[in-house]
Amino acid sequence: MISSSELKKRVERLHLSMECEGIESLLVSNPKNVGYLTGKETGRILLSKDQDTLWTRELYTEMHSDLYFGKGYPFEVAVYEKDAVKRKIADLGIENIAVENMPFLKYENTCKELGMKVLVSEIVEWQRAVKTVEEMEMLGKSARIAVNAMEKAYDVVREGVREIDALAEIEYEIRMRGSDSPPFNDGMLLSSGKDSADIHARAGRRKIKSPSTVVVDLGGRYSGYYSDMTRTLEVGRIDAKEKDLLLFVDDLRARAIDMIREGMKAGDLHSFVEKEMEKKGYKFFHGSGHGVGLEVHEFPSIARDSADVLKDGMVFTIEPGIYIPGKMGVRFEDMVLLKNGKARILTR
Amino acid sequence: MISSSELKKRVERLHLSMECEGIESLLVSNPKNVGYLTGKETGRILLSKDQDTLWTRELYTEMHSDLYFGKGYPFEVAVYEKDAVKRKIADLGIENIAVENMPFLKYENTCKELGMKVLVSEIVEWQRAVKTVEEMEMLGKSARIAVNAMEKAYDVVREGVREIDALAEIEYEIRMRGSDSPPFNDGMLLSSGKDSADIHARAGRRKIKSPSTVVVDLGGRYSGYYSDMTRTLEVGRIDAKEKDLLLFVDDLRARAIDMIREGMKAGDLHSFVEKEMEKKGYKFFHGSGHGVGLEVHEFPSIARDSADVLKDGMVFTIEPGIYIPGKMGVRFEDMVLLKNGKARILTR
Repeated sequence: MISSSELKKRVERLHLSMECEGIESLLVSNPKNVGYLTGKETGRILLSKDQDTLWTRELYTEMHSDLYFGKGYPFEVAVYEKDAVKRKIADLGIENIAVENMPFLKYENTCKELGMKVLVSEIVEWQRAVKTVEEMEMLGKSARIAVNAMEKAYDVVREGVREIDALAEIEYEIRMRGSDSPPFNDGMLLSSGKDSADIHARAGRRKIKSPSTVVVDLGGRYSGYYSDMTRTLEVGRIDAKEKDLLLFVDDLRARAIDMIREGMKAGDLHSFVEKEMEKKGYKFFHGSGHGVGLEVHEFPSIARDSADVLKDGMVFTIEPGIYIPGKMGVRFEDMVLLKNGKARILTR
Repeated sequence: MISSSELKKRVERLHLSMECEGIESLLVSNPKNVGYLTGKETGRILLSKDQDTLWTRELYTEMHSDLYFGKGYPFEVAVYEKDAVKRKIADLGIENIAVENMPFLKYENTCKELGMKVLVSEIVEWQRAVKTVEEMEMLGKSARIAVNAMEKAYDVVREGVREIDALAEIEYEIRMRGSDSPPFNDGMLLSSGKDSADIHARAGRRKIKSPSTVVVDLGGRYSGYYSDMTRTLEVGRIDAKEKDLLLFVDDLRARAIDMIREGMKAGDLHSFVEKEMEKKGYKFFHGSGHGVGLEVHEFPSIARDSADVLKDGMVFTIEPGIYIPGKMGVRFEDMVLLKNGKARILTR
């Protein structure tokens, strides 16, 4: 359960960033961002120098309070009524306002609603990329669920078992370990043999063969915070060339993690992974990693040409993968925390 | 497995709508829309009078073909390269182009990429709201998974069982019944007693008490198509007033479904539900329903002031709910298919 003091810290940090970036006021309505700042993914917030207001449905006013989150809840809470935001802006004399990176038609409607042109800013998403101590703890617990579930995977992935049955057992384990939700929006991935050459392959009714390799991509969720982890499992005795490929990708994962330093450009980290693969004669078809937090995929993006800078407090994945159509796929993924300048693996 | 002939039908229908709305060409990149038109949720499409092109990653060119979907795959498939879309637009002499309702910053980047101002259209989402015969079949099978899972819920929801444990059993059942993924993005909802007064309450470690009511909101997914269904279960002998509330909401669900007619405004259907609740002395805190298909929430929206028109072939939910803070929540939800002018319940 998140506390008022933690929420207050987040709101204060956001005010500082707004000041740095010259944002006079900010209207927040993306449920994940609202949840990050208020403790509950519902309602709309207006942040400004003079006042931080949260509008919510009548049903929720009681939950958004000291009663629920402890003394010092950092918002004035009001029931949402038509034009409430517009009136508040006029009352506070606000002249410029920023909103989130929302769908285009919603952006147009917001401009119409407020009767003014608004800026678009990803300031909340960037703050969310750098975790607070409390968030690091939640992410650590979430990673623990993933590690335990992966142990279960090593247990249930066997010759003759249908992919979907192995997956159901693992998802069940994830829930029983206390995960808030199933792993990821579309559920976890489990694919064997040549089907695993498709990055997004979903578990089917195929039976797992021996020898073969099985890609298992899973995660948990603790107090809203996701985790993400992938292993490529061996079933039976795979041949030496396949074994070599597994070792190469797993080693590349480890080497990439060792390279991580504070202040590094995410695109450079990706280039390293891509070049190592090319040396070995393979192309790299996806990004090297992504931030993890209240969403499975958030900032930073560790991909080609990414200018995102890796900062202390960020939590993200490193996930090299090689895919050979008609043959097999191999991916190894860990979730790391960048702290005191270096990366520490959380999924271990 | 979707066939080339089904995909062709969808693409042809989209071309007709584009002509009606005066859209010369359409760039599609939302994975759900791409999946709807190409059979696989990856890549970008440009639809125009002269040619329908799909750009994808090298890894996927083989999967996007007659080989995989059967004779007559309706796209020219090319590997994506920088500025490929811009060059194609120039080659085909396209003068105006529409894109989907994408995030604002992505919209700005797309304008920059294409070197022209683009329109925003939800034409694909609106086509998706009216299901093809094949889609109705998938949705029927998906609804069947939900119904079977709900039977499991009646079985496992008992006094003394932790909410999270009951939920894990039900999600396991959903997977074992062949669901493509867990129900919904955040998993299913199961909440008992006073916690169910929160519409979005998630299962916790609380034990289910007797007497109490338990809201179970679940669904399955078959060949990509979701289902959605809610029941409020009784544990032990609840009092007469509570029983009366359950009967009222369930009956209101049935009456709303009986009222559905082709050509009706969705907002009017919602008004009916809201007014009936108000007569009984309750407020209605959410929408009466939403379309279901490749997404759990899609068009139409059955909510206050919705101008969406209910059409033959639409599949959507009807879900009245009453929430009494500190006491209980009651919701009953069915998924219906509007066919031959009337609604037929799929979740039964």
